[in-house]
Amino acid sequence: MIDVHAQLPRFGRLSLRRVGVTGIKKPLAVQRPDRVVTLTASFDVAVDLPSDRKGSDLSRNAELLAEVVDATATRPVASLESACSEIAAELLRRHPYARVAEVASRAEYFLSRGISDDRRSYEDYLLIAEARAVRNGDRVQLFRSIGAEAVGMTACPCAMSTCRARLVEEFPLLADPSLKELPIITHNQRNRTRLVFEIPEKVEIEADAVLDAIEEGQSSPTYAILKRGDEATVVLNAHRNPKFVEDVLRSLLSGVVRRFPGLPDDVNVRASTVSEESIHKYDVIAANELTLGELRRQVAA
Amino acid sequence: MIDVHAQLPRFGRLSLRRVGVTGIKKPLAVQRPDRVVTLTASFDVAVDLPSDRKGSDLSRNAELLAEVVDATATRPVASLESACSEIAAELLRRHPYARVAEVASRAEYFLSRGISDDRRSYEDYLLIAEARAVRNGDRVQLFRSIGAEAVGMTACPCAMSTCRARLVEEFPLLADPSLKELPIITHNQRNRTRLVFEIPEKVEIEADAVLDAIEEGQSSPTYAILKRGDEATVVLNAHRNPKFVEDVLRSLLSGVVRRFPGLPDDVNVRASTVSEESIHKYDVIAANELTLGELRRQVAA
Amino acid sequence: MIDVHAQLPRFGRLSLRRVGVTGIKKPLAVQRPDRVVTLTASFDVAVDLPSDRKGSDLSRNAELLAEVVDATATRPVASLESACSEIAAELLRRHPYARVAEVASRAEYFLSRGISDDRRSYEDYLLIAEARAVRNGDRVQLFRSIGAEAVGMTACPCAMSTCRARLVEEFPLLADPSLKELPIITHNQRNRTRLVFEIPEKVEIEADAVLDAIEEGQSSPTYAILKRGDEATVVLNAHRNPKFVEDVLRSLLSGVVRRFPGLPDDVNVRASTVSEESIHKYDVIAANELTLGELRRQVAA
Amino acid sequence: MIDVHAQLPRFGRLSLRRVGVTGIKKPLAVQRPDRVVTLTASFDVAVDLPSDRKGSDLSRNAELLAEVVDATATRPVASLESACSEIAAELLRRHPYARVAEVASRAEYFLSRGISDDRRSYEDYLLIAEARAVRNGDRVQLFRSIGAEAVGMTACPCAMSTCRARLVEEFPLLADPSLKELPIITHNQRNRTRLVFEIPEKVEIEADAVLDAIEEGQSSPTYAILKRGDEATVVLNAHRNPKFVEDVLRSLLSGVVRRFPGLPDDVNVRASTVSEESIHKYDVIAANELTLGELRRQVAA
Repeated sequence: MIDVHAQLPRFGRLSLRRVGVTGIKKPLAVQRPDRVVTLTASFDVAVDLPSDRKGSDLSRNAELLAEVVDATATRPVASLESACSEIAAELLRRHPYARVAEVASRAEYFLSRGISDDRRSYEDYLLIAEARAVRNGDRVQLFRSIGAEAVGMTACPCAMSTCRARLVEEFPLLADPSLKELPIITHNQRNRTRLVFEIPEKVEIEADAVLDAIEEGQSSPTYAILKRGDEATVVLNAHRNPKFVEDVLRSLLSGVVRRFPGLPDDVNVRASTVSEESIHKYDVIAANELTLGELRRQVAA
Repeated sequence: MIDVHAQLPRFGRLSLRRVGVTGIKKPLAVQRPDRVVTLTASFDVAVDLPSDRKGSDLSRNAELLAEVVDATATRPVASLESACSEIAAELLRRHPYARVAEVASRAEYFLSRGISDDRRSYEDYLLIAEARAVRNGDRVQLFRSIGAEAVGMTACPCAMSTCRARLVEEFPLLADPSLKELPIITHNQRNRTRLVFEIPEKVEIEADAVLDAIEEGQSSPTYAILKRGDEATVVLNAHRNPKFVEDVLRSLLSGVVRRFPGLPDDVNVRASTVSEESIHKYDVIAANELTLGELRRQVAA
Repeated sequence: MIDVHAQLPRFGRLSLRRVGVTGIKKPLAVQRPDRVVTLTASFDVAVDLPSDRKGSDLSRNAELLAEVVDATATRPVASLESACSEIAAELLRRHPYARVAEVASRAEYFLSRGISDDRRSYEDYLLIAEARAVRNGDRVQLFRSIGAEAVGMTACPCAMSTCRARLVEEFPLLADPSLKELPIITHNQRNRTRLVFEIPEKVEIEADAVLDAIEEGQSSPTYAILKRGDEATVVLNAHRNPKFVEDVLRSLLSGVVRRFPGLPDDVNVRASTVSEESIHKYDVIAANELTLGELRRQVAA
Repeated sequence: MIDVHAQLPRFGRLSLRRVGVTGIKKPLAVQRPDRVVTLTASFDVAVDLPSDRKGSDLSRNAELLAEVVDATATRPVASLESACSEIAAELLRRHPYARVAEVASRAEYFLSRGISDDRRSYEDYLLIAEARAVRNGDRVQLFRSIGAEAVGMTACPCAMSTCRARLVEEFPLLADPSLKELPIITHNQRNRTRLVFEIPEKVEIEADAVLDAIEEGQSSPTYAILKRGDEATVVLNAHRNPKFVEDVLRSLLSGVVRRFPGLPDDVNVRASTVSEESIHKYDVIAANELTLGELRRQVAA
């Protein structure tokens, strides 16, 4: 059989940054401290292509993915991120013409959480993991990302302030000092916040710690099971902690400095947040990206 | 050339309910009272297939759709629904073996609305139109649907009641009679509500009237342009009109009885509403379907 | 605390067909013949609401779902469908005012399949399960649905015939009798086919058997791992088995009669198929719905 | 009223890269050579935020967007891209604290095309436009992107080669020299290709020229209206022009060099292509990004 992929390109001798497969779904067994969980993970897997080669051997990508993932059925992997790293490194071995291999993965992730211990149930989150292997002579350098996304709630501080002013006119007693801390109506909404760290080779980060940092940044986390009194508690918490998307992002990033003291300065931090505004048909977003060193300098200033 | 579609089926002589094309997008020019608007509409077009025919002549569907839609560039159609009706009736002529032809269409639709006249801008809505033509000997009967969907806002009456009880304990002055009507915090969220009428041949319904009925059903409509004071107004309106999804649906359906007195009793009404809960990661829904006659009886009871 | 949900409705005393929660995601442990698999399942859960009650106690839905799903962590359930049935029946107990409870669920599902034994890997499919419990005096009747969806491939028999005619003009040798069975070019594409059975209480159907029936209906199943020779095999198989969407549906339905001889005549069968046409920007569909008895009569005719 | 947005941040004095609104949909009137078309466009609009300011005045974004878009109803804009540029520049004026303003837009776009003049109808494409305004002392620099996406078709050259080898074994006559150019079966599929140019201030690019370049890169464009003979033509064209995603990208990029001789070397070119493989359940992708100067050097090499 002719090796069509190894032929010279017919339509221009151009090198390509990225050739691969996208949206391969697999069940991945991950070892958690207390038990094995099976993630339904989606993978994108690609390598670069030199200018003198017509095609990338894409069947190797699917084959390798199957090998790594199937092996976890009997030997669970430590994390989604470690599966990505293993695949990226092995991709370079199986695509000898490639210099860079990239793996990106997403998985729904369940944690047993609740507003109190007797209200716990599985809440769903998103796990994010990426790995990039770069060939450098005989050495392979590995760049990794780990992150997560959580849905929570925000309450708007501006409309709260404006509503207070409006209500005091209508209800003069509201100006009484004893009501100074009374939570006032505003618009509140579903908020989706994401935090991703780009980390050096020896550094590890726990997904659950990322999710804790995110939920602290929002006005309040949200829960599947809330009885009447619990609903009031969530609503009260959110209104005592009103936040713009700007506030969510700054809380989250300040929390990162406090929560991850051991991470080196050259870790890159990407954070973004989306509020699905209840008073508009469109969403509001805030995003930032900077090194942990730069973040520490800004927080310390 | 062999007419492969007209051959006998090879894999079982079964009649099929629906064979067609789906997701064809077209620019459709519609004549509004004051001006021509161009909708980006998506069409699904299908007919049934008898048991003795291998295939449906699907190229006729695409061809017919192009003819009808292209013609609107110079001669705008009266409505999305009338385009669907014209296509359904013509489908039966071009598929002589078919007994039923079905057309379903969706289009984003913009209306200039605002919380006040100097805050107007285009708000986006969804238009829904369907037509079904049924051959009955020499006659063709036409069944039509027209509807719309609007995004608005709801505020929860239950959490409001529970928060009031909780806050009165902490702020006894809140029990003062002068504060009885003070709007109290609760969770509020984006709400998406849909109303569709199945109407007889001679009856017409205006999409804008459908949207008015929907927005009245929600705790408050929402708007793209809101300055600070306007935000307070929307928040106050929503909290003075707290509604479960059940309330949204009942308000809407009661409004239908009041707003459309001229429609006959055999009109079918389908209504559904989704609240994207701010205190949960999941949505809450309510739905109903009944004839206008039955709806009138229930409302009068 | 006031029971706001139990109050009389304020916006019209209308009964509602369906009030519930939608899009709750949960990890569900299912016992397969050889091992336990964890599905990431999405649930919609609803009950009807009488005209004299303001709201449905939705927190019970989330609570019940958590109880049933969490219990599977230590005691796996027999199937997605049996989880739905258990939830539907229990919903009626926890919503004493309801007459009908409905549960719908979807889950990504992985089976180890391949074009040959040494090419097996996890292929992804969709599981579909629904249950409806209806209170009838002291009895509760249970209506259940089980189904699945698989992505495969179709090759168009019409373009194949037309291309043959065109190619014979250009390559007269193609008319040689020895080339009569030579597979000829046509357009082929990704096809997504779904089959759902509505089954009586004592009847069971295996999801894997549903998927086998679907894949037999398509021109060819598709696989994640295909080396060069395997690709040729899949392409050849598909071109030797060219099918319209009409053919896919009829093959599938004929296969149902043959594959499920033990099912009673009153089982309802819903089948639909979508070809993401490679020569068009839009999709082509076919759909049918009928009882198994009627299907058997048509196939026998 | 208190200006809450102008207050100092409470959760950390961090500057933020991007704060804005996303997913605002608007009808935009665009002047084409022959007529005015109305695009249904979606806009994301954001600015950066300094470390000493709690919030960005987001209502200005919605207001500005409405002003610019509404004005096109009576005075159509030259292109989606020019609307983005106008909005980006004006954003900096209305957010005096911002240094960078970003606008991204997408719109469905219809062109009357066909396999022959009497088969023309509206084919749907995607328009992409972005603008970034950067304040530099008193000057504002404008960075712009314009691009498009088209769906077409690819046929795989590798499976074609393998199928030929397999078929020659079974049909020895196929080796006859007169059949050397006979198109051979392979898998073909829907392909989605995108090309975006980042262009300097005075340079203009026509969306239609971008779409022509994309469609030339694919094995064949696809059309809504194809009668039987036309289907054969498209299938034949695609099989006489078999292409991997790598080939699509290289054809497209080589075509860019040939088709846009007047563009300066510092234009950045981003191209990506996705084949929705018919023989797999997953997609295959290729992507590249480089300056036009570098692209010209590679093509000339």
